[in-house]
Amino acid sequence: MRVETPRPPVPAHPTAQPASLLARYRSVRAATEKLCVSMSAEDQTVQAMPDASPAKWHRAHTTWFFETLVLEAGLTGYRHFDGHFRELFNSYYNSIGAQHARPERGLITRPGVAETTAYRAHVDEAMARLLAGGVDDALADIVEVGLHHEQQHQELLATDFKYLLSRNPLAPAWLEHPSDLPDSLTAPPSTWLAHGGGVVEVGHDGNGFAYDNETPRHRVLLEPFLLASRPVTNDEYLAFMEDGGYGDPALWLSDGWSAVQANGWQAPLYWRSTDDGWTTFTSSGTRPLAPDEPVVHVSLYEADAYARWADARLPSEEEWEVMAVDAPRNGTFQEDGGLHPRPAPAAPDGRPTQMLGDVWEWTRSPYSAYPGYRPPAGALGEYNSKFMCNQMVLRGGSCATPADHIRASYRNFFPPPVRWQFTGVRLAKDARYAV
Amino acid sequence: MRVETPRPPVPAHPTAQPASLLARYRSVRAATEKLCVSMSAEDQTVQAMPDASPAKWHRAHTTWFFETLVLEAGLTGYRHFDGHFRELFNSYYNSIGAQHARPERGLITRPGVAETTAYRAHVDEAMARLLAGGVDDALADIVEVGLHHEQQHQELLATDFKYLLSRNPLAPAWLEHPSDLPDSLTAPPSTWLAHGGGVVEVGHDGNGFAYDNETPRHRVLLEPFLLASRPVTNDEYLAFMEDGGYGDPALWLSDGWSAVQANGWQAPLYWRSTDDGWTTFTSSGTRPLAPDEPVVHVSLYEADAYARWADARLPSEEEWEVMAVDAPRNGTFQEDGGLHPRPAPAAPDGRPTQMLGDVWEWTRSPYSAYPGYRPPAGALGEYNSKFMCNQMVLRGGSCATPADHIRASYRNFFPPPVRWQFTGVRLAKDARYAV
Amino acid sequence: MRVETPRPPVPAHPTAQPASLLARYRSVRAATEKLCVSMSAEDQTVQAMPDASPAKWHRAHTTWFFETLVLEAGLTGYRHFDGHFRELFNSYYNSIGAQHARPERGLITRPGVAETTAYRAHVDEAMARLLAGGVDDALADIVEVGLHHEQQHQELLATDFKYLLSRNPLAPAWLEHPSDLPDSLTAPPSTWLAHGGGVVEVGHDGNGFAYDNETPRHRVLLEPFLLASRPVTNDEYLAFMEDGGYGDPALWLSDGWSAVQANGWQAPLYWRSTDDGWTTFTSSGTRPLAPDEPVVHVSLYEADAYARWADARLPSEEEWEVMAVDAPRNGTFQEDGGLHPRPAPAAPDGRPTQMLGDVWEWTRSPYSAYPGYRPPAGALGEYNSKFMCNQMVLRGGSCATPADHIRASYRNFFPPPVRWQFTGVRLAKDARYAV
Amino acid sequence: MRVETPRPPVPAHPTAQPASLLARYRSVRAATEKLCVSMSAEDQTVQAMPDASPAKWHRAHTTWFFETLVLEAGLTGYRHFDGHFRELFNSYYNSIGAQHARPERGLITRPGVAETTAYRAHVDEAMARLLAGGVDDALADIVEVGLHHEQQHQELLATDFKYLLSRNPLAPAWLEHPSDLPDSLTAPPSTWLAHGGGVVEVGHDGNGFAYDNETPRHRVLLEPFLLASRPVTNDEYLAFMEDGGYGDPALWLSDGWSAVQANGWQAPLYWRSTDDGWTTFTSSGTRPLAPDEPVVHVSLYEADAYARWADARLPSEEEWEVMAVDAPRNGTFQEDGGLHPRPAPAAPDGRPTQMLGDVWEWTRSPYSAYPGYRPPAGALGEYNSKFMCNQMVLRGGSCATPADHIRASYRNFFPPPVRWQFTGVRLAKDARYAV
Repeated sequence: MRVETPRPPVPAHPTAQPASLLARYRSVRAATEKLCVSMSAEDQTVQAMPDASPAKWHRAHTTWFFETLVLEAGLTGYRHFDGHFRELFNSYYNSIGAQHARPERGLITRPGVAETTAYRAHVDEAMARLLAGGVDDALADIVEVGLHHEQQHQELLATDFKYLLSRNPLAPAWLEHPSDLPDSLTAPPSTWLAHGGGVVEVGHDGNGFAYDNETPRHRVLLEPFLLASRPVTNDEYLAFMEDGGYGDPALWLSDGWSAVQANGWQAPLYWRSTDDGWTTFTSSGTRPLAPDEPVVHVSLYEADAYARWADARLPSEEEWEVMAVDAPRNGTFQEDGGLHPRPAPAAPDGRPTQMLGDVWEWTRSPYSAYPGYRPPAGALGEYNSKFMCNQMVLRGGSCATPADHIRASYRNFFPPPVRWQFTGVRLAKDARYAV
Repeated sequence: MRVETPRPPVPAHPTAQPASLLARYRSVRAATEKLCVSMSAEDQTVQAMPDASPAKWHRAHTTWFFETLVLEAGLTGYRHFDGHFRELFNSYYNSIGAQHARPERGLITRPGVAETTAYRAHVDEAMARLLAGGVDDALADIVEVGLHHEQQHQELLATDFKYLLSRNPLAPAWLEHPSDLPDSLTAPPSTWLAHGGGVVEVGHDGNGFAYDNETPRHRVLLEPFLLASRPVTNDEYLAFMEDGGYGDPALWLSDGWSAVQANGWQAPLYWRSTDDGWTTFTSSGTRPLAPDEPVVHVSLYEADAYARWADARLPSEEEWEVMAVDAPRNGTFQEDGGLHPRPAPAAPDGRPTQMLGDVWEWTRSPYSAYPGYRPPAGALGEYNSKFMCNQMVLRGGSCATPADHIRASYRNFFPPPVRWQFTGVRLAKDARYAV
Repeated sequence: MRVETPRPPVPAHPTAQPASLLARYRSVRAATEKLCVSMSAEDQTVQAMPDASPAKWHRAHTTWFFETLVLEAGLTGYRHFDGHFRELFNSYYNSIGAQHARPERGLITRPGVAETTAYRAHVDEAMARLLAGGVDDALADIVEVGLHHEQQHQELLATDFKYLLSRNPLAPAWLEHPSDLPDSLTAPPSTWLAHGGGVVEVGHDGNGFAYDNETPRHRVLLEPFLLASRPVTNDEYLAFMEDGGYGDPALWLSDGWSAVQANGWQAPLYWRSTDDGWTTFTSSGTRPLAPDEPVVHVSLYEADAYARWADARLPSEEEWEVMAVDAPRNGTFQEDGGLHPRPAPAAPDGRPTQMLGDVWEWTRSPYSAYPGYRPPAGALGEYNSKFMCNQMVLRGGSCATPADHIRASYRNFFPPPVRWQFTGVRLAKDARYAV
Repeated sequence: MRVETPRPPVPAHPTAQPASLLARYRSVRAATEKLCVSMSAEDQTVQAMPDASPAKWHRAHTTWFFETLVLEAGLTGYRHFDGHFRELFNSYYNSIGAQHARPERGLITRPGVAETTAYRAHVDEAMARLLAGGVDDALADIVEVGLHHEQQHQELLATDFKYLLSRNPLAPAWLEHPSDLPDSLTAPPSTWLAHGGGVVEVGHDGNGFAYDNETPRHRVLLEPFLLASRPVTNDEYLAFMEDGGYGDPALWLSDGWSAVQANGWQAPLYWRSTDDGWTTFTSSGTRPLAPDEPVVHVSLYEADAYARWADARLPSEEEWEVMAVDAPRNGTFQEDGGLHPRPAPAAPDGRPTQMLGDVWEWTRSPYSAYPGYRPPAGALGEYNSKFMCNQMVLRGGSCATPADHIRASYRNFFPPPVRWQFTGVRLAKDARYAV
């Protein structure tokens, strides 16, 4: 079969109208600040590991994005808040210039929280002036990327902070426990949903915002497969543990088995075994493990080993995406419910639940470029493309992801050993091997 | 489009007849010994880095494979040469038992070379007895895997030893320089060969031997693409270097740029800049760089950066394979010519050259399971499948690969930073972006 | 020659009267708080390296000392501020129990600065109650140790914080530059002062407070020697640098040369070479190097290499001590002058200057027990004695040492590579080799 | 008290007569070769850890010493065996030039054992010519140093090789077990021998050979002390272990406790706990622990912890030396008895036994320069003096030390954590605290 003439890449960043763009700018920026309301100056300053960043840094870096990529070029006469910040808060953009070393973000006590707040206000004021006057499509596109960028950092800010508190032997709580989470909540049984395979289309369809790495939309040939109706629960994962899952090398990828031994992994991150059973550390402190909640804070290695133990496998990202298109958003993000994945709701007929929200689902797909992909020109070309190696694709969004930052074509990516994100497991199976 | 009913996996290891199997056994085993003829006892003992192994270990481990996987079960009354070897020479088979730590292979001075030779003779004698009597298909299959396993180790033995000698400040030569390599040899210009894309079949077709990871043969949808007619040469790679390739982060994957900085890479492994120009360390000692030979000893990161600099990309393994099926084997392994990639021969009309032999070609494909893949039962299930993470596929075979160990469907794999293998670069391009 | 009958160890901690002890307690505690006045919550939270601690930790740990070693046993009905602090703020006392890992002190954001202040107030109130009622000699001794302990931490708090700010690319200033330090201040020439050697007494003489490691006072036989009249200046050290001192292995101890190469040392810590000459980072920000100030922030290795280059050597701690007994205190700590060593004042006739205050002077003496030394019983036995290995003795006190914490018999100790303290160099010479 | 006019340093290297010097040269060189008789080429090539060196390297480096420091200057027309060896076999002499990196000595397979033997013969022939003709005193002194240097390396060669074999899971034996070591040998009880202290003389007295670091002989003031009549035995050390010695931080120096935890030390190096009791790995393979043999292969930290547990301490090197001067040599090195410390013989009246030979005894003295010490000019100045930091002095010589390389003033030195030498423990005590 011959494929049709290639189409141009989808326009990934459709222009928003000035008024709504400014409103949206204010809304996203305010959401960041709201996240930090209950964090002290001390809380916002410390970097708990090289992969994580201080909350204060997230607040400054997302501001830097607008200052450097929007205001510098777009607002005549814009004056920088502090010229040193151009390097200090550059995360990884070589095309913009030098960067302060990532593992040393936690050594910066000055600027402090108050000065960071002033920096945000300074840039917000300039952005308001700029957006009030209207911007051309190209600049509006960059603003849009900046807002999604800030939403990504909202999730990182939350997960980095949760990790930081977990390193404190006093195990402090940060948020109140969600009121919608009674202990009696249960998840329905997991069932297998079938897809017949064939040539399907995946990638962003051009409606609404997407990152460059979701494009171009393209066709791919799938074999028939089955997908689990919901993510794996804590209780199911415990069965794997109790069956000796962490002690049997036959279940693990070679690098995964090395990671188990080097790190002494015996359970997901944050789990502790106590005389009263398993507990887990949450944003509302240490709590008994809820059996019917989706398992989170597992690495790709653990997700893969669990799947092998369950005589299944992880889905590919394309399999996941074609099943997510029709999926209901009923299991998604709870606006005020904080950082807790929910037990799955009752499954609709023939369609999976909790695809969008609750937990990031490891796929078996290494993160690489779609056929025909080309990175954007300029600094934004560094946003996604230079990481297309040594990482795995995760799909779906988590309980820490802003609701309007979740979509079926979204490609998140992390290295296989990562555990401090809300990462979980959904099973898949080749149809040919299914009974 | 709906794909057809799944077929069973191809029989990967067709049975050989007893007489020919024994003859082949003897031939492969003798080839290993021939490789070591000019290595002293000292040469065979040292491990130059954790990724490499002593020559003596390769000779013992390949013998262990037959002893443990064939003779233990297949030859009644077989007596082990030394019961300790079962653990000492187990590389990574957890299903067989404990293993001596890989980075400590170079600490073993006893058994020495003479005892290793005796071990080989002991097992060869038993194997001859076994094969002379005829074996069933299942056992013959394992013997066949053992022979291909030994051929893989022949290549590793050669590349590990080249690396070891390179760490000696005296830069000793190991082999004579190939007599067929006059300095005047030149490569033809590189041209672009087009493929129209569409649904193609890849994976082993069932004729002859294949590893499990080449199966099942399956269909995949390709976009139209272009493939370079030959690998990149030293001269072409030098142009990248002279254009500042190693100093421009915009050309590199993020992990690649980190590797460049952490390791101080300025050129491929073994290259040295001297007053008389570039030299490279070879199996025949330090020699002037031959401009028209394919570049070798580059990492995936360097291959990828070169491709980006050249406004191209690396091929996917499926693109590579469909082009290799029709490719001539004219540029392949020179039986007595030693460890030197050759300048490309004149290109045949419309077909690529040097696909099979000379250099392993990095692809853009992370190493993972083919759709429908299932690992074999037992110890052989660990052979390939547990490494399907954090590695990239290489295709084609090198000047160090035994000629009958090279085939179009063969999937080699190494982590992205690896440079001590004969790894090179072939360019590809999306047809949609071609001028 | 036969030495006399051994005397009992000196009473190291003479009892203070209740009233004066409480006054002194308040004075020392207030001095700690004064040091932190210009530190933000962010400043007080971060740990810049494993050897350093957050300011907040110093404030809490010194409080823990009184709570755990004094109030627990001494104040009936005392209630802990927070039971978790017993482990959280235990530095290294195994006899008291488990300890929070030293390199993780900077991960603790809660308790924050405000709660730390409340902790100090809670313990201060209890201590006031206790001391107002009078305590027995044994408890008074421990209180006295606690006050000296807190004074030691005042110096660490200051040097740790200076180091933290130095890691900030913005190089923020912390204190105003001392007003008594005009650029025109000069140091007198260095001269050699002779001591005839013989049997001398060293160690604490029993008047006033001393740590256990300064006892017992004992006799030691010295060869005749010369001691420099003042510490080495920045200008003199620059001459060593300009003569290639950092590039000549013949000048260095073997471990020192390794440290130079591993760390890329080219100058003392905090020095930077600029187009306008050398600068150094100080508590009042980056400043031009003052040529006549004593060199500080050099390791034992650098001090030793400088001495060898100058055809001299470092003094032994006993040589240093016998010369310090008669030395004037004219060059000592400036109460309000902050963290700057001063240029040496004019030397008195035949006596060294700046022995007590300004810079810690590396000696050639490894830190070990005096003949007849016995550590105190209980937790205080861990205070000094378990560190008597792999460290070198420093003498004299620095510009960051509280004035009443400086005495001729005081033995400070740090490992040879340490540079973040105010460590300098005073030369000595064997009389037999002097011209 | 005023000490007398300084004397010049003792002549450390008295000239030997030509004939006897050549005879001695041949004897020492032959002893090295004899040590290696039962080592294969493989055995001689591998470096088991950075602190150790291959046997082949020891043989070449000791030869390099004579070639570089004697023949280059002393023998007209001498031609180097191979010019590359000047750098390849330079251990640490910066004044001679560059050095091959120490941790990479085990990567050198060429030159091999045969070429190393030829190198030794080449230099031996030239040395024989030189010495036959007679040499001046200065050169004879250097030859003498070279012979003692080679004797030091004989011990290292043996201990490095023992360590290498210990890393082989097959635990191969190297030498026959000494025939004079029946299991029934017992050690006499340990008793305390008193010394009254006072001003004593230590350091080499000028009779016979000494290294520069044993000079100048000088006076030192000692307090009265007690010394144990013999080293601590395995049985005594076991009592410390069984009493929880490795689990009680109160017994350990701070750095020692860190070493125990970081390395998981539970017993001396080479000890293994089996169902049949403790075994230890020896040059004659794995053997049951002999209860009355001196404990060996303990670090300074373990020696110090044992002493604290035994309510004693380690002797200073001066205390040790004054007691060794009168000590019998009855417990020393057994010419053909191999690498086993012997149970102590019956103690003579009032004098310690096994001071000279059997085990190196850790002292409490950090290794530093004697008062008035000056290193020799030239390369030999690097021999001892640049290591005078971070090491501890050991005294007495071990069962692996050549008998005529042992003397009372000899100062061996190693860092505190070292365990692969034959290092043991002798106790001391302050007389003032003795009952």
